[in-house]
Amino acid sequence: MLGKLLQPEIESLVAARDFAGLRKTFSDWPPADIADTLNDLPSEDQIAIFRVLPKAQAADVFEYLSPDEQESLLRSMGRETATAILNEMSPDDRTALLEELPPEAVKKLVLLLSPDERNVAQKLLNYPEGSVGRLMTPDYVAIKPGWNVGEVLEYVRRHGRDSESLNVLYVTDAHGKLIDDIRIREFLLRPIETPVQEFMDQNYTSLCVSDPEEKAVEVFRKYDRTILPVTDADGHLVGVVTVDDVLDIAEAEATEDIQKLGGLEAALDMPYLESPIQQLIRKRGTVLVVLFLGEMLTATAMGFFEEEISKAVVLTLFLPLIISSGGNSGSQASTLIIRAMALGEVTLGDWWRVARREVMSGLSLGVLLGAVGFLRIGVWALGFGSYGPHWALVGLTVGVALIGVVAWGSLMGAMLPFILRRVGMDPATSSAPFVATLVDVTGLIIYFLVAATILRGTLL
Amino acid sequence: MLGKLLQPEIESLVAARDFAGLRKTFSDWPPADIADTLNDLPSEDQIAIFRVLPKAQAADVFEYLSPDEQESLLRSMGRETATAILNEMSPDDRTALLEELPPEAVKKLVLLLSPDERNVAQKLLNYPEGSVGRLMTPDYVAIKPGWNVGEVLEYVRRHGRDSESLNVLYVTDAHGKLIDDIRIREFLLRPIETPVQEFMDQNYTSLCVSDPEEKAVEVFRKYDRTILPVTDADGHLVGVVTVDDVLDIAEAEATEDIQKLGGLEAALDMPYLESPIQQLIRKRGTVLVVLFLGEMLTATAMGFFEEEISKAVVLTLFLPLIISSGGNSGSQASTLIIRAMALGEVTLGDWWRVARREVMSGLSLGVLLGAVGFLRIGVWALGFGSYGPHWALVGLTVGVALIGVVAWGSLMGAMLPFILRRVGMDPATSSAPFVATLVDVTGLIIYFLVAATILRGTLL
Repeated sequence: MLGKLLQPEIESLVAARDFAGLRKTFSDWPPADIADTLNDLPSEDQIAIFRVLPKAQAADVFEYLSPDEQESLLRSMGRETATAILNEMSPDDRTALLEELPPEAVKKLVLLLSPDERNVAQKLLNYPEGSVGRLMTPDYVAIKPGWNVGEVLEYVRRHGRDSESLNVLYVTDAHGKLIDDIRIREFLLRPIETPVQEFMDQNYTSLCVSDPEEKAVEVFRKYDRTILPVTDADGHLVGVVTVDDVLDIAEAEATEDIQKLGGLEAALDMPYLESPIQQLIRKRGTVLVVLFLGEMLTATAMGFFEEEISKAVVLTLFLPLIISSGGNSGSQASTLIIRAMALGEVTLGDWWRVARREVMSGLSLGVLLGAVGFLRIGVWALGFGSYGPHWALVGLTVGVALIGVVAWGSLMGAMLPFILRRVGMDPATSSAPFVATLVDVTGLIIYFLVAATILRGTLL
Repeated sequence: MLGKLLQPEIESLVAARDFAGLRKTFSDWPPADIADTLNDLPSEDQIAIFRVLPKAQAADVFEYLSPDEQESLLRSMGRETATAILNEMSPDDRTALLEELPPEAVKKLVLLLSPDERNVAQKLLNYPEGSVGRLMTPDYVAIKPGWNVGEVLEYVRRHGRDSESLNVLYVTDAHGKLIDDIRIREFLLRPIETPVQEFMDQNYTSLCVSDPEEKAVEVFRKYDRTILPVTDADGHLVGVVTVDDVLDIAEAEATEDIQKLGGLEAALDMPYLESPIQQLIRKRGTVLVVLFLGEMLTATAMGFFEEEISKAVVLTLFLPLIISSGGNSGSQASTLIIRAMALGEVTLGDWWRVARREVMSGLSLGVLLGAVGFLRIGVWALGFGSYGPHWALVGLTVGVALIGVVAWGSLMGAMLPFILRRVGMDPATSSAPFVATLVDVTGLIIYFLVAATILRGTLL
């Protein structure tokens, strides 16, 4: 917001190539706002600005850009600026950048790092993608249980500068194993001669380097933490993860779920307007073709009822109405269950309770829609003389079919996520479009079977 | 997880009514885990445990329960325990509880509070629902620019105990106006005689009490903060908001979006299995009936083509296939745009760029599906002799209709969120089911018009 306000001032400084002035203007801006402003400038100007900013600030601003922007900037900025920024970046943000790049680019960039930073970067990249190891930063303050508050504060003053956060300190034993985490407030509120051991409670929550990222999101949510320690398999403290990275992951997960629910392969990892249109078409096309092949079964199914249709064309008038009602109730049910599973409210063992609830709900909703459908047909028949002499039977057919289709749709929609999860797939794959396709085929079979029963001897 | 492991031990302590033992076992558990364990116990036991826990710990645990559970516990626990817990709770969590209760209950509970806490609670409840004021807590540490580091640390030691967090301290002027925020690390890393003024940068980010909650989520995401100061309209510091409350709101927002996308009224605020089934049915029924009424237009539209249908029953075989393809491409497009709008990647002004992209994508996807459809009809016709002598023309009709329907579906799906936002509605309302219904009606009109053109003189 600050960025937008000062834009004209920035523009005139850029136009005048007054980079000293820019450096001064930016000196008290938050890095996120500087990054916002840079986004609106051409890349030559961005590079010129990165060159004049103090190293540490340049790295802070750089961390707020998307990996794509970071990559293209690194390619065009001079070796010196790139080296400075890469060495100053937080190890966790640097990992996020490096893992987006092709292996040769990573090799080249890692060579720009100082021996210490190179060591850190390579260690982090060795953890599997999507693991907590890739999110963490090894900059934390570890203290010993034998110290007192004054010694701790003195140690922090001397060694805390590089630490990602000083909000929580970690107590480790002689072998570097994590034995406690203590919030900085505990030290600030106590007399300086208090021994650390006196207020340790051995009660801490930690993540393991090999845990999946989703685990981190879950633990942060559950324990309301802003930073969590990470240990290796043997319990040695190796790093910390901060909540800002976790917010980003939670957002990316929600986007993935939402896109899957909308019938998209969950791999659209760029903003919509920036994704190349060919890629967009390919990703959407795959799903559409799969759905289309599934939906072809409706043509096959309807083939079996061709005779009924030609005898009672009136039946086809209500076909879209009936199958779409099944699809809609199915997508409601699957959305509810998928989200409840994602939030941990519903687990595999609940399938039977869910099935009973959905059959109950589905039947009630079916009766409701069936009544509305029958009414609609009745009104048109009596008012406009539509649907012929057997309109009441047609209405009954539509009403009964709706009860069956809506109940069946709800049950299918609710059970599909359980089946997918049971076989190890992501429940979110059973999105509205997939459920609708499945229910379309079965729905029209239900409809024509109901029709064949009710209308036998009259229309059929 | 701890809770599940120790469950038998807890159970035997509860069974033996050994509450002193329970108190001891729980003494070094994180409150979130105690809350988890309580959830599995009958409410008499929960109440007994709350009575024996130390006041502060009882309040911490209580804060991790859902407002529903909190409400039912408060009703059944004694006046004394309730008073202790309510007075010890964080003001922000207490507001979240009180705003769920009916006004009479709130009045009764507020009377249990000490005069100081009552004052705080009433002030917070005076802010409008959904505003930052309702999220904040007034417990923070404010310091003066004239102090030095040593004075600040001494002040924190004496006055910081009740503060929600000591990770950030706030500098206010003589009138209580916020002039800076400084992370605790800045004090910890500097010699104690350093004047605060020396490292103030007047560069801070704050929220206003009247800002909507969504604004808080946005600012926390953008600036990667864990805590933010809140000011009144005149810039006076009045409280702080922490990131844990914001994570909860972000999660609730995602759930709301996802449920809307699945065609549910976004008001299912309880976990699926805990929602009363009547409520579930009512909420789903409303949307289903609205969709059903919209979908009835398909019956009307098909009525106009009854003559064509009776002449060429073969056309109806592909009807579900064609309208569902339109619905699927439409729901893909609307999902992409709704999510991009929620993330701020697409704004109202982008509608023309989006429209062009979607027409392009839609036509390409339509050609793809059209080709597959024509092929399917060709294979069946040549292989099984289906679809009569004019199968090639039928195939052509289906193919051309698919191009039109898919392109139209994509365009509609993408534009609907823009239209809704333009008229001030939530774009997420244009969910897959709504888009599908809209596209069903228009899709079948396109199909029959194409058929009338291509098949005139042969089948029609």
